[in-house]
Amino acid sequence: MTSPALTIDELTAQRDAARRDYDALVRRGLSLDLTRGKPSARQLDLSEALLDLPGGHSAADGTDCRNYGGLQGLAELREIFSGPLQVPAAQLVAADNSSLSLMHDSIVHALLGALPGAERRWADEPRVAFLCPVPGYDRHFALCERFGIELIPVPMNAEGPDMDVVERLVLDDPQVKGIWCVPKYSNPSGVSYGDETVRRLAAMPVAAPDFRIFWDNAYAVHHLTDTPAEIADILALCAENGNPDRVFVFGSTSKITFAGSGVSFFGSSPTNVAWLLGHTAKRTIGPDKINHLRHVEFLRDENGLAEHMRRHRELLRPKFDAVETILTKELGGTGLATWSSPSGGYFISLDVLEGCAREVVRRAGEAGIALTPAGATHPYATDPRDSTIRIAPTYPELDEVELAISGLATCVRLVATEKLLGRAG
Amino acid sequence: MTSPALTIDELTAQRDAARRDYDALVRRGLSLDLTRGKPSARQLDLSEALLDLPGGHSAADGTDCRNYGGLQGLAELREIFSGPLQVPAAQLVAADNSSLSLMHDSIVHALLGALPGAERRWADEPRVAFLCPVPGYDRHFALCERFGIELIPVPMNAEGPDMDVVERLVLDDPQVKGIWCVPKYSNPSGVSYGDETVRRLAAMPVAAPDFRIFWDNAYAVHHLTDTPAEIADILALCAENGNPDRVFVFGSTSKITFAGSGVSFFGSSPTNVAWLLGHTAKRTIGPDKINHLRHVEFLRDENGLAEHMRRHRELLRPKFDAVETILTKELGGTGLATWSSPSGGYFISLDVLEGCAREVVRRAGEAGIALTPAGATHPYATDPRDSTIRIAPTYPELDEVELAISGLATCVRLVATEKLLGRAG
Repeated sequence: MTSPALTIDELTAQRDAARRDYDALVRRGLSLDLTRGKPSARQLDLSEALLDLPGGHSAADGTDCRNYGGLQGLAELREIFSGPLQVPAAQLVAADNSSLSLMHDSIVHALLGALPGAERRWADEPRVAFLCPVPGYDRHFALCERFGIELIPVPMNAEGPDMDVVERLVLDDPQVKGIWCVPKYSNPSGVSYGDETVRRLAAMPVAAPDFRIFWDNAYAVHHLTDTPAEIADILALCAENGNPDRVFVFGSTSKITFAGSGVSFFGSSPTNVAWLLGHTAKRTIGPDKINHLRHVEFLRDENGLAEHMRRHRELLRPKFDAVETILTKELGGTGLATWSSPSGGYFISLDVLEGCAREVVRRAGEAGIALTPAGATHPYATDPRDSTIRIAPTYPELDEVELAISGLATCVRLVATEKLLGRAG
Repeated sequence: MTSPALTIDELTAQRDAARRDYDALVRRGLSLDLTRGKPSARQLDLSEALLDLPGGHSAADGTDCRNYGGLQGLAELREIFSGPLQVPAAQLVAADNSSLSLMHDSIVHALLGALPGAERRWADEPRVAFLCPVPGYDRHFALCERFGIELIPVPMNAEGPDMDVVERLVLDDPQVKGIWCVPKYSNPSGVSYGDETVRRLAAMPVAAPDFRIFWDNAYAVHHLTDTPAEIADILALCAENGNPDRVFVFGSTSKITFAGSGVSFFGSSPTNVAWLLGHTAKRTIGPDKINHLRHVEFLRDENGLAEHMRRHRELLRPKFDAVETILTKELGGTGLATWSSPSGGYFISLDVLEGCAREVVRRAGEAGIALTPAGATHPYATDPRDSTIRIAPTYPELDEVELAISGLATCVRLVATEKLLGRAG
């Protein structure tokens, strides 16, 4: 983005207006939180019927869901999510309340027990590196940092990660063992991967025999428009291209039913599923099957799931529209910021002038508007351009979103004009 | 045990009677399962009200339990289990449905992130060993085997593990990093640790600065008599003896409410709890707080928990009594077997003549009575004396337990008399 040609006087006037607006903002004494992608209380109310379910305790095959066992999770629940996650139900595992846990455990098991195709455990490798399309999800990065896995940033473009860069890195470096992907309505940019991106990920030659794509399809059914994004079937494409064990698919109902009390999913090749379950069998005797049954009775089938997601959309769409409207009104044509207009997911990515993001977040915080720390969208919490801010508009009520985004725009105008005048002077 | 002095003729007559009984048993075509310590359907029925709970979704402090967060688990749930697990609520973590998972993850975090007091991660140690009182719990052993942790057996006596052996091993070998303990109604012997055993565990000098007691208090409230076993407070004793970080306490409601849909607990020093939660924060945004709330509403308080356990006892006591009665009638005074008479827990340990356990389990299996594999009570699934059989009488209905134990006794008589005659001849 480039700032339009303004005279110093015009810019000074803009800065002074921004300062007045910011002072007024601080005086309002707001307390608003746009930090995390949490569903709102109204969204959670959509699933309130779960509290009275299940009506019985028997699975379709007669299993008493109250007792131990059933490591792979309830078959009828896996059937519902097979289509949305593009994984055959037989190759899907339904687990407990957190897909992050499944990602964590997949890395743990790869560190402490060799992956199918691996020459050794990752713990015995001199170095393990993951590619991280940026901007990306801070909890993915934190997982790798916690285990000493090196993070290599890869630029995102409108079709997903820059595949020229990805293909070169995975071919040149056998220590590159994985890549993080949020393929649909990506966190935070909202980008959905193009078919050619998915095909290249599935087909590309890689140096590491135990390379894995961590395919976090967190927003598989989280549409905000009438034209849902469709992504190519990575699991099938991997198999077609002779790389059947290349991808781990993750998903969950955290942003479908109850954020803290949902169900998570892992899908992959039969070989990888057997590998995961073999390790999981040492860790637990089975998942919470009553919660599985509860979800089956509540969602019923894929149509029931789609209908439920339409109700979420009714609550979410006005918030995303409000962000778009306010940012356009306050910052459109100023050259001070650009932002994403996602058609699904939970986030909007706001790019401010280089070197301004931290200061915008700091100023917003002082005005009572909590934002995700600038840099969180990048590995090691460091955005080299200091320009990306993640906006999470789902949790506050609509009027709060409007207040917060309006205030945020004021902070952007303030910090950007101060910066430009600093440069100019 | 010694076999009473019998003539060859008497022994032959006993063997022939056992053979006739065994043939009759096989002809019955039974299909009975005494393999695992699972609650019966009637026991699960005691908690059926959980299916309609919780009545709301707010915790005592107003937290919306449906949303993300709350890594330590619901405070009011931790309060209920603080007394039974002998851990202050502030030092207790309430997690998901499996205490085995907490044990697994504690080992994973110790392997991949140094324990408080440790010189290095266990993954970087040349060797890690755990002491295993035997007979013990096969899933404890399997966890260690899966991570390449060496298992060193320690004999159990009537007061717990042989502390002379334990004290020597932990002092001599800095690679001994842990010990498995089931301190109350131990699996499978039913032994509860004496106060002096607990005191010595808490006070003993150890060579490893990162030595931990894995205190699996799985049967803390699972009494079968009017005189509940009381064990000494290991966490307090560790602190009193200058070893505040020595013990990890584990517990769960798996055998209190629903085996697959309960709540698990981890308790330790503030330092260890902070260490666990720090690692857990990378793995999950929080446990299933709705299930926590469900359990709080159902159990209410420590008295409610005790009352609920009395109802379990009413169902379990007749099964344990039946085992005792039948084994006494069929094997008492024969010298062919001894067995435990536990006052709580889930198991009875049957000791047959040396070298006979595998064959008894094999013969029982052929007669349709499934037993836990002989050797499962020992590290590496190898009982050097081949004499211990674990009986799990909780899951089948009472008449099935009676049939199965009577059949098992027949197998013991058959294998033992054949063995003695083989020796004699």
